[in-house]
Amino acid sequence: MIRERHLFGPGPSNPYPEATSALSQPLLGHLDPEFIRIMDETSDMLRTVWGTENSRTLPLSATGSAGMEAAFVNTVHPGDVVVVAVNGLFGQRMCDVAARCGAEVIAVEHDFGRTVDVDRVLSAHPNPAIIAAVHAETSTGVRSDIAALGAGKDDALLITDAVTSIGGIELHADAWGIDVGYAGTQKCLGVAPGLAPFTINQRAFDRRVAKPQSWYLDLNLLGGYVGEAAGKGGQRTYHHTAPVAMVVSLHAGLTRILDEGLDAVNARHAEAGHLLQDGLQEMGLDLFAEEGWRLPELTTVLVPDGVDAAAVRAELLNRFDIEIGAGVGPWATKVWRIGLMGHNARPDAALLVLAALKDVLGR
Amino acid sequence: MIRERHLFGPGPSNPYPEATSALSQPLLGHLDPEFIRIMDETSDMLRTVWGTENSRTLPLSATGSAGMEAAFVNTVHPGDVVVVAVNGLFGQRMCDVAARCGAEVIAVEHDFGRTVDVDRVLSAHPNPAIIAAVHAETSTGVRSDIAALGAGKDDALLITDAVTSIGGIELHADAWGIDVGYAGTQKCLGVAPGLAPFTINQRAFDRRVAKPQSWYLDLNLLGGYVGEAAGKGGQRTYHHTAPVAMVVSLHAGLTRILDEGLDAVNARHAEAGHLLQDGLQEMGLDLFAEEGWRLPELTTVLVPDGVDAAAVRAELLNRFDIEIGAGVGPWATKVWRIGLMGHNARPDAALLVLAALKDVLGR
Repeated sequence: MIRERHLFGPGPSNPYPEATSALSQPLLGHLDPEFIRIMDETSDMLRTVWGTENSRTLPLSATGSAGMEAAFVNTVHPGDVVVVAVNGLFGQRMCDVAARCGAEVIAVEHDFGRTVDVDRVLSAHPNPAIIAAVHAETSTGVRSDIAALGAGKDDALLITDAVTSIGGIELHADAWGIDVGYAGTQKCLGVAPGLAPFTINQRAFDRRVAKPQSWYLDLNLLGGYVGEAAGKGGQRTYHHTAPVAMVVSLHAGLTRILDEGLDAVNARHAEAGHLLQDGLQEMGLDLFAEEGWRLPELTTVLVPDGVDAAAVRAELLNRFDIEIGAGVGPWATKVWRIGLMGHNARPDAALLVLAALKDVLGR
Repeated sequence: MIRERHLFGPGPSNPYPEATSALSQPLLGHLDPEFIRIMDETSDMLRTVWGTENSRTLPLSATGSAGMEAAFVNTVHPGDVVVVAVNGLFGQRMCDVAARCGAEVIAVEHDFGRTVDVDRVLSAHPNPAIIAAVHAETSTGVRSDIAALGAGKDDALLITDAVTSIGGIELHADAWGIDVGYAGTQKCLGVAPGLAPFTINQRAFDRRVAKPQSWYLDLNLLGGYVGEAAGKGGQRTYHHTAPVAMVVSLHAGLTRILDEGLDAVNARHAEAGHLLQDGLQEMGLDLFAEEGWRLPELTTVLVPDGVDAAAVRAELLNRFDIEIGAGVGPWATKVWRIGLMGHNARPDAALLVLAALKDVLGR
């Protein structure tokens, strides 16, 4: 018997109930006509949450980090200049992944907790092949202005990490000029971890690497897997066995989100996040992320002087079954990360975590 | 409402009920002490089904094909000679994956349906860095003698694909000299697709690539993810978010298998497979795989002259909710593949598929 936890960390969050019960539906074959219909509908719904018309929009069969790898491995040609906006762990990771693809990486470093300085990123190189940035930095709770990067990207491709933004705050891949985007299922989409919603437009696909170093993430091969060549409902080419149960669960989660409506879902994330952030400040705690760029879905808060950050997290877990996250890198013991994402983006969840923190901190 | 199918194709198979219900347990955080215990136990049980003591035994966070990629990407240095035994689709795929890692690939080709000619593979090159072979070829239903390859490999590393053998027929990674092995969850292990059980011994790890072209599958980083550095129950390093629900499901499937006992599970696969193969021959059908090397868990049978292979499959699906597989490559319309794997490795399942085929073929 597994304990029921409140997953108020940086993810995974508690899935929508619909997503959980879909996991235990009878398993379909990965080439079953019924599964192919579910995969088609999933891609359709992913287009809606991404804000894109890209035909090449699909859930990759691995977690969000593999989505990052797919983005770079399919677009970086050896020697390409890749400008990466680094304002947290996931920007740093982009540099590592791009370098493994043979990129000449230009990292535009920012202090953790700050939003990306668009001018600095756009002027880092006269004509980069790729500009890459994280929309919602999971490590710091900061949003960055992807639309401004898209407006100024010129001939470069724009790769965007939307792992912690998709399904929680506004995201308009086409309108913002995102050429390649990847995300995860386990944050605001309210589905268990295991898939990477991915989208790539024609412009980026035309510049793709002919034979990427990864076979598993090769978009040339994955096109057949989702029936892209033959169009919707068309013939599938076997590439790998789809993680059927996870895709069916994502389908259920997306159905739930779109039934509620994307605007309503975003408003729910905003309401819960603001309730939490106001409450934390009323308790005398200081928020970590730059004002004006705070994510409602993921709040970072400074650990008060003299408080043992890990002990507080352990007490929350052990007494109240509440999980919150530690900080990352230099902020590991100085920041807590509190996520109210997906099914947890509710006022009652905000009240609960505030009450529990108040109790444990004695405030 | 999803239809209940009998998944008698080459995989996925119907999961063990325990594996399905585990999927809808409350979700744990990927760093929750309770999940870490489940991950440790899963690795322990994987060691048992692999027949290995390798500390580096874990479920990779993607499907079996990513396991193949992980095997090569972590061991192939540019220019390495890699001898691949090719007797089906997955041997061919190994060549593609190894070439993308910069290997000089020597493919030892066999007719589809034949077992690997051990002497030919061992004499293909005087001192290859790696020898790779598929234990159970999913595309043809053929077993190969991995122990003999291991006995003759000399200084080479032996990479083995055990996707369709693990949990269904004998597999002794250490005793047979397998240095790197990968598998899938969706065949004889009786769990939904989505993870790649993986094992690598110290000898192969000592020769590993320092910085593999894949960040996601980099074993240097994954060691921390499963707490290898700190030992069991030790501190975990964040690498990527584990697909928690899938790991919990694998844990349940493995528990079921080991409760029944590996020998009993293998005997059950053998019994069901032989019942099926005898019955098919009694119907006057010819088996495709080489006699003496037929997999009990996956039977290949020649489509009789004048019979529309796809129409038969469609009728089985539409009238009886029975899925069987088409052939692969040149045998796509000439062979059916019938799997009785995991929870489906039962005499009643064999009788059912025989009765349905008899009905549809009018025999």
